[in-house]
Amino acid sequence: MTKAKRAKQPKAPKPRLPRGLQDIDSKPFTQQINMVSQLASLCEAHGFCALDTPALEYADVLGKFLPDAERPNEGVFALLDDDEQWLSLRYDLTAPLARYVAAHYDQLPKPFRRYQWGWVWRNEKPGLGRFRQFMQFDVDTVGASGAQADVEMCMLAADFMEALGIARGDYLLRVNNRKILDGILLSLGLDPDDAAYEMRRLTILRAMDKLDRLGMDAIRLLLGAGRKDESGDFTEGAGLGAAAIDKIVDFLQTDDKDRQAVLNRLGTHAQDKGKGAELVKIGLHELALMDELLTQLGYGAERVLFDPSIVRGLDYYTGPVFEMSLNMSSAKSQTGDAARVGAIGGGGRYDGLVARFKGVAIPATGISIGINRLMAAREAMGAMTEAEQEAGKARLVVVLVMDKTRLGDMLALVQQLRKAGIQAELYMGDGGMKAQLRYADIKGAALALIEGEDELAKGVITIKDLALGRQKAAEIADNAEWRASQHAQQQVKKEALIAMIQQKLQIN
Amino acid sequence: MTKAKRAKQPKAPKPRLPRGLQDIDSKPFTQQINMVSQLASLCEAHGFCALDTPALEYADVLGKFLPDAERPNEGVFALLDDDEQWLSLRYDLTAPLARYVAAHYDQLPKPFRRYQWGWVWRNEKPGLGRFRQFMQFDVDTVGASGAQADVEMCMLAADFMEALGIARGDYLLRVNNRKILDGILLSLGLDPDDAAYEMRRLTILRAMDKLDRLGMDAIRLLLGAGRKDESGDFTEGAGLGAAAIDKIVDFLQTDDKDRQAVLNRLGTHAQDKGKGAELVKIGLHELALMDELLTQLGYGAERVLFDPSIVRGLDYYTGPVFEMSLNMSSAKSQTGDAARVGAIGGGGRYDGLVARFKGVAIPATGISIGINRLMAAREAMGAMTEAEQEAGKARLVVVLVMDKTRLGDMLALVQQLRKAGIQAELYMGDGGMKAQLRYADIKGAALALIEGEDELAKGVITIKDLALGRQKAAEIADNAEWRASQHAQQQVKKEALIAMIQQKLQIN
Repeated sequence: MTKAKRAKQPKAPKPRLPRGLQDIDSKPFTQQINMVSQLASLCEAHGFCALDTPALEYADVLGKFLPDAERPNEGVFALLDDDEQWLSLRYDLTAPLARYVAAHYDQLPKPFRRYQWGWVWRNEKPGLGRFRQFMQFDVDTVGASGAQADVEMCMLAADFMEALGIARGDYLLRVNNRKILDGILLSLGLDPDDAAYEMRRLTILRAMDKLDRLGMDAIRLLLGAGRKDESGDFTEGAGLGAAAIDKIVDFLQTDDKDRQAVLNRLGTHAQDKGKGAELVKIGLHELALMDELLTQLGYGAERVLFDPSIVRGLDYYTGPVFEMSLNMSSAKSQTGDAARVGAIGGGGRYDGLVARFKGVAIPATGISIGINRLMAAREAMGAMTEAEQEAGKARLVVVLVMDKTRLGDMLALVQQLRKAGIQAELYMGDGGMKAQLRYADIKGAALALIEGEDELAKGVITIKDLALGRQKAAEIADNAEWRASQHAQQQVKKEALIAMIQQKLQIN
Repeated sequence: MTKAKRAKQPKAPKPRLPRGLQDIDSKPFTQQINMVSQLASLCEAHGFCALDTPALEYADVLGKFLPDAERPNEGVFALLDDDEQWLSLRYDLTAPLARYVAAHYDQLPKPFRRYQWGWVWRNEKPGLGRFRQFMQFDVDTVGASGAQADVEMCMLAADFMEALGIARGDYLLRVNNRKILDGILLSLGLDPDDAAYEMRRLTILRAMDKLDRLGMDAIRLLLGAGRKDESGDFTEGAGLGAAAIDKIVDFLQTDDKDRQAVLNRLGTHAQDKGKGAELVKIGLHELALMDELLTQLGYGAERVLFDPSIVRGLDYYTGPVFEMSLNMSSAKSQTGDAARVGAIGGGGRYDGLVARFKGVAIPATGISIGINRLMAAREAMGAMTEAEQEAGKARLVVVLVMDKTRLGDMLALVQQLRKAGIQAELYMGDGGMKAQLRYADIKGAALALIEGEDELAKGVITIKDLALGRQKAAEIADNAEWRASQHAQQQVKKEALIAMIQQKLQIN
């Protein structure tokens, strides 16, 4: 090869992944799909219908993150289509739902009740447990204004957790109402017609949202002059006066352990005159309706609690907001003060989102669960359904190749095993006996089958119990004893093989 | 609002989708997921493990479509990451597999056997049934050089079809070997060291690939001087002489109805002296080994046939190639001459793909199924599994709201139904009786339950049989008769409600 030709050969690429993106191996992926199908069954039982929408949509349709010409990637992955329109990878499943409902409104049953799960992408700085691609599971009712629709979402969120093996008491759905928050801001004297209102509102809500993580003293600073964190970074405060800060701090108390107590305490904020108190009153009335239904349906405060500190990030919420968190005190890898992981999901009422397209407000409410974060939390808590325990058992049978001229017979044996409901494969590589047994072991196989010259002459098959071997190896400290036991194997007549394997694997 | 302020409001976006991208509604989406999980079970039974990889990867890692600075979107969707490296949406599941294997080679069981399903994206001109996002289901064995691994793929592909309710005889896997094709080209006198070789090889293979669609006369033109199609577009030919064209045409005969006959006929091409014949001989030997195993395992030519016209598009194949097609003669919407749809999947042996990263060739073989295309074909053929027939039955019970002060009681009733295994929902909208019944009907509900003032006084619930109503409406031409029957409804005592519904829906 000439030098010029060689230079044209592309350099071997490194087999690397972009940051914040991950492969998911067999076990966690299967678990993820099982979780999703468990939740999907629950949704179907509630009459919700599945929907799928494409990963790519027009950026202006998804809204919120309108790309500018210079740097379209603010928060989303965006690219320019052939027709010079910007496309984005969806950053959630709610924006596509709003688009779908607006496009098909006349044909849809009203209310439209759908569930959807799938990947979403955020072009943000990845971190520990924070990925740029993750899976969401959403349920929404579009075209329903009543508290019963919000209540259904709360009950469903709780049912989700229990269906996934998370015990009652280990999860908590905390509920607030955006109208109460907005009412409080109004009663502090903030003026929505003021140019700086939106910015200031956001600063206050963001501060309140941090109560769980930073504690009340830090919130006081963030509501006032600002706060310097441990790293020395300064966060600008909302600039509220002492009286206003006291009012919010009083409002944020979250010690109440039943819903009625929260309603009673917040009732004091509804007694003033003025628009703010009026809005608080409406929000409290909505919560009171929810409390009534939840109580009648048997969903007590140990499952669904009212909590005035719940904000939720997305700014399209207009009424009740929900946030699901898990009690990690039973978690294996728990650090002292982290009794709760961050929210694994949430949602709320968003009566204005479809109006972006239709011009007419269409009331809607929904929840969204972060499947990957929930999975990590379940893992840490040791939460497991029976089906998962069953699926985790070693079941695979690997048939070894002792004689390459008999591949057909070996494949036929594997076929016969599978017909009897046994998970089975023929070793497909070129390795010898040792490599084949190592293969079966890495795969976590239960049994290896050997039909060598000896066995063939005697009309038997040798069964090596690999699962038993691994178990013994874990129990037995003595190396010699382990070696002896690991070779525990038996020969069975070919006619008796399937029955013996079924017995060993406890099939049927 | 001032005019200036109004101008700043973004115009309401149209709720549209980019071309070539689609929403998937409840029924087809559920069917798609059921298909995938059916195939996944089969893979698990064969000892293949699931793998998931992210949608976005580095463009140079995925290879093939290296973006240039000007127009990175040649065939793929590409975008520039924050670190100025190009990312692409994956265009198949094989390139990510090669990257995964190269990155984790030492830790993986060898051979590595994995299945994977998921969306892939191609930035190509969409058309009828051709989308820019579609789902693939792939199975691969990496690190296995023997014919038994190829044979397993062929058998699995056939088993896939039957597991999805496609009858034997309605599908056909056609198998060829790239070594035979390359040998034929060599024996025609084409020189691999020639600068124009790759281009010319591609032109010839592309021509051969069109045999199914255009017929032999067109292929002769495409192998020779070129061909003008019906629209007047001219396709440049490969420029072969008459003798070479005859040789290829002879090679391409596909009338043989059993595998041995194909091997015998192609054997004549292995009798010459020279490298070309040598390569043909090696390819034929590989096919002969496959034939032997397939025959012993009972996979006859009605399921797996050898066909010298099979090329497969991707140019990384190095040995056997497979293509799965369906016989659509039983299809409902069949046009006279289209007895076969295009391939719904295929695959083959690619011994060089992992070498892009590792420098060392790692033998691999696999199949890939196009789930959306397969689904469309099954739909047309009326292929249905028992589970799908069962899932298609109307099962939903909609509880109507007659009195808004009794929402709690109604929710409790729905909860009670669900606990008894009945799919049930409360009407969540604001409509009256008529709107509620229309809702239940659009949803395809089986039953509607009514507990109005009358019923409450008598301690009964009225059951409206909507499924029966729809069935009657389809059977009965007479309008009056239909109206009478559609109102067929009955009242049952509350205590007997659940048993009655279970009986009507044939639950348990």
